[in-house]
Amino acid sequence: MAQRRTRDRIHEIIFEADTPTGKYFDIILLVLIVLSVLTVMLESSEQWQRDYGRTFLILEWIFTIIFTIEYVLRLWTTIKPWKYALSFYGIIDLMAILPTYLTIFLSGFGAQAFVIIRVIRLLRVFRIFKLGKFLGEGDQLKMALIASRNKITVFLFAVTLLVIIIGAVMYLIEGGTNEGFSSIPRAVYWAIVTLTTVGYGDITPKTNIGQFLSALVMIIGYAIIAVPTGIVTNEMLNTKAKGHQKNTQACRYCSRDGHDDDAEHCKYCGGLLNEPEEIDS
Amino acid sequence: MAQRRTRDRIHEIIFEADTPTGKYFDIILLVLIVLSVLTVMLESSEQWQRDYGRTFLILEWIFTIIFTIEYVLRLWTTIKPWKYALSFYGIIDLMAILPTYLTIFLSGFGAQAFVIIRVIRLLRVFRIFKLGKFLGEGDQLKMALIASRNKITVFLFAVTLLVIIIGAVMYLIEGGTNEGFSSIPRAVYWAIVTLTTVGYGDITPKTNIGQFLSALVMIIGYAIIAVPTGIVTNEMLNTKAKGHQKNTQACRYCSRDGHDDDAEHCKYCGGLLNEPEEIDS
Amino acid sequence: MAQRRTRDRIHEIIFEADTPTGKYFDIILLVLIVLSVLTVMLESSEQWQRDYGRTFLILEWIFTIIFTIEYVLRLWTTIKPWKYALSFYGIIDLMAILPTYLTIFLSGFGAQAFVIIRVIRLLRVFRIFKLGKFLGEGDQLKMALIASRNKITVFLFAVTLLVIIIGAVMYLIEGGTNEGFSSIPRAVYWAIVTLTTVGYGDITPKTNIGQFLSALVMIIGYAIIAVPTGIVTNEMLNTKAKGHQKNTQACRYCSRDGHDDDAEHCKYCGGLLNEPEEIDS
Amino acid sequence: MAQRRTRDRIHEIIFEADTPTGKYFDIILLVLIVLSVLTVMLESSEQWQRDYGRTFLILEWIFTIIFTIEYVLRLWTTIKPWKYALSFYGIIDLMAILPTYLTIFLSGFGAQAFVIIRVIRLLRVFRIFKLGKFLGEGDQLKMALIASRNKITVFLFAVTLLVIIIGAVMYLIEGGTNEGFSSIPRAVYWAIVTLTTVGYGDITPKTNIGQFLSALVMIIGYAIIAVPTGIVTNEMLNTKAKGHQKNTQACRYCSRDGHDDDAEHCKYCGGLLNEPEEIDS
Repeated sequence: MAQRRTRDRIHEIIFEADTPTGKYFDIILLVLIVLSVLTVMLESSEQWQRDYGRTFLILEWIFTIIFTIEYVLRLWTTIKPWKYALSFYGIIDLMAILPTYLTIFLSGFGAQAFVIIRVIRLLRVFRIFKLGKFLGEGDQLKMALIASRNKITVFLFAVTLLVIIIGAVMYLIEGGTNEGFSSIPRAVYWAIVTLTTVGYGDITPKTNIGQFLSALVMIIGYAIIAVPTGIVTNEMLNTKAKGHQKNTQACRYCSRDGHDDDAEHCKYCGGLLNEPEEIDS
Repeated sequence: MAQRRTRDRIHEIIFEADTPTGKYFDIILLVLIVLSVLTVMLESSEQWQRDYGRTFLILEWIFTIIFTIEYVLRLWTTIKPWKYALSFYGIIDLMAILPTYLTIFLSGFGAQAFVIIRVIRLLRVFRIFKLGKFLGEGDQLKMALIASRNKITVFLFAVTLLVIIIGAVMYLIEGGTNEGFSSIPRAVYWAIVTLTTVGYGDITPKTNIGQFLSALVMIIGYAIIAVPTGIVTNEMLNTKAKGHQKNTQACRYCSRDGHDDDAEHCKYCGGLLNEPEEIDS
Repeated sequence: MAQRRTRDRIHEIIFEADTPTGKYFDIILLVLIVLSVLTVMLESSEQWQRDYGRTFLILEWIFTIIFTIEYVLRLWTTIKPWKYALSFYGIIDLMAILPTYLTIFLSGFGAQAFVIIRVIRLLRVFRIFKLGKFLGEGDQLKMALIASRNKITVFLFAVTLLVIIIGAVMYLIEGGTNEGFSSIPRAVYWAIVTLTTVGYGDITPKTNIGQFLSALVMIIGYAIIAVPTGIVTNEMLNTKAKGHQKNTQACRYCSRDGHDDDAEHCKYCGGLLNEPEEIDS
Repeated sequence: MAQRRTRDRIHEIIFEADTPTGKYFDIILLVLIVLSVLTVMLESSEQWQRDYGRTFLILEWIFTIIFTIEYVLRLWTTIKPWKYALSFYGIIDLMAILPTYLTIFLSGFGAQAFVIIRVIRLLRVFRIFKLGKFLGEGDQLKMALIASRNKITVFLFAVTLLVIIIGAVMYLIEGGTNEGFSSIPRAVYWAIVTLTTVGYGDITPKTNIGQFLSALVMIIGYAIIAVPTGIVTNEMLNTKAKGHQKNTQACRYCSRDGHDDDAEHCKYCGGLLNEPEEIDS
């Protein structure tokens, strides 16, 4: 019984953020994740690798061991461990620790290939959104983006058509003389660089007619950037004030969260969210 | 009679997207169009042309034959074929197949000049907007853009005046010393590159006064980008909820679509949209 | 009396756009202005000047003579010519013809210095806004911009402070090693290029800390572009539907326009806008 | 008593902007601050320093002496000088004069290090917001930004995650062959340059797959710029018309301002804002 209560408490600390201890845990975890990703980033620089390679290796192992303990605790305190292990965050949590262990067996090889997997552990940071005030804000943004998804798809689709046609025209105009427009895909790349107003300048038109066409493309890009903005602003006006209060509880059976404040059962699997204290004692 | 029914069914499949078969047909066509345009794009790259030139030629002919069959079916199932042939999509459909046949007679020559016509077949993809959920969204966007057309014209007109005057001033300031401002048209090109915040960097001011003026232009560009955004957002708020339900039927007499869900006659030519089943049998 | 009526009719044609003849006059004038500015622009290119210098000279004189006739007619049909001559458009109209005459006396010299004055004749094009449908749109845009003037001033002021401080910091960081940051004004120029997302790339940070600071500046610029957009969108929502019907009449006494449709007297000088037809005959 | 009245009047002039003299004082101060910052900026240029070094030195001392007198007057007229000296503007005011005095003792050394402190005196310009019409506008902007703070934090947080992951992927793709992607931090810098549509062009993708990924990043950046715009526009619509009338009085006890027009006591320390005239005489 005592063990069960311990499990309950640990579950509350590591999965939720409604208690002070739960909040502290989340903040410490956040700091550790950010530090471990910073380590991965700096390690990728040849110069830092040469100067502090040993320190990075030790730090990496410290972070991995801490994350492993956390992962094991998460598995232990969840009632249906497999459901957690196969949930989105469960997989991310596993991917945060696996690469370091794998480097033992694959030493010297593929260290670089794992870099991307190590960086993905940053996704775990999204758990910070559990922290109070950001919960509603993030939800509202997400809802506005979801609501405008179809319109943005249509817009991006039209933009794609536009850049392909512009690219093909520029390929015809400057393809023969300008190295940068030597194939349609490159010309399309240039059209995207121009239309989105990024403007690297690695490929630029040289002929008068090419420059004239570019100027047109820029003005089009400058004008149609208004479209996604209009879409999102609109949806935000609509979704405003529709948000409902949620808390940070995570179901102990299926590890999914997003439950309303007054919910007693998990809305995904029906599991009891908070076992009554009386029965426990 | 049986043949008539077949024609009716084929018309429904290739022109409309309300039936499952019609939807599948549209999706397959979409994939074929995208693939054929990808082929054209990759073919334009000298390296790919050298390595896979033969494959591209075969693919191009396969796509052309499929599109030809589709074009003939469209002509056959439409009651007034000439109206279809001369409609916007009729011409696009013809332009999608013509270039390949023409290359037989004009072999070796002008292959590159046809590339732009081949890419235009991408416009056929706009038929995908018939696919359910995008129908209303596209309409709403189009309505908002049409409603803000006059305001955007006024805005673009003012921007054009602005860039010409800025270009002339920069030509006076840096024209003598800076190769990039050697004529007013080039200076106007630079002004557009700067005002739209594209910023290639192929032409940049070198003198102090030139850099000061550029900085002003950038800040103006940064501030007035708000104008088209404000216009479109506004119109979107207005056009919202004004859209009415449309379906994907296309008239068999004049091949135009955009009919309301409860329409029985084509609103353009008056032709009957759905001949009653009883009479058919 | 007949002469007076002629003057009345000419005034109506060249100053207003409510009659068909007035509209045609405006459109022809618009085309002439655009063509004459195009001539000035192309003339500035050394190559075109060499090849077509003579043609440009002839064209310039043709345009100047037409504009001179128009200017004289404007003076003649206005009841108080000096008021017109000293009005905004009166001065622009004079500046459109003066440079060509002055080149006779100052031949060989200063031709380039006049180029900017010649381009300014483009401002005359703003008379096109008299043309029907653009009248209200332009007014609405202008009203929204005037209403948001104070807020945009505050915003641009804050941006100016920001770029100066960012420039000073970057001068300290990279001033010694990077040619592009050799003085604060240059560093401020870079800060503006970066914050407005123009990004020429003629000056770029080289050190790690410089690149880190740039990244911050970019993200700030990316976020605060929302501010002017928010301001203008807001004001547009407010000014919407407040516009009142205006026509294109210009007072014959003081040459100012913008009178309401039902106005009988000029709201600036009190002069009668339309002398009753009965009295005239 | 007379001295006390003088102090009262001087306090009103230098701290407030409701009287004509107070307004003139603010405008003169504004001009002096801008001039002194311009001096600092130009001084940083090696060429100007060589040509006008002596003039700059004299100007700097003139500005410093004027600002010192102003600072002493501010201390003298405030009832609790320490509170003013330790307030935000009190520290800025001190920092505006200190560097020049310190250069006497530290001559030849560190002159450059003080440049940033000298530029910070520009922050004093924010006092111009006291000038009538800008007061409400600035407040409204500030309120809208504060209200959207949480949403913008969430947005910038998501953007940070995005650029790190994009950077890691690009490091894997082009890290080996392209100098610009030699470490993850540099690749992240590139991702920020691209996503914010700045596009310096100092680091650009060279491989086909890298260019394809860049094109994706640009289009994402082009689309999500809508998000902060939507947020701010929204909040502006909400905060509109909520502003309340404030005047420019500053408390003589604690030197803080922002008091309502009808306030009699300072809302921060409770000190009397305007001592009754009768008692004074």
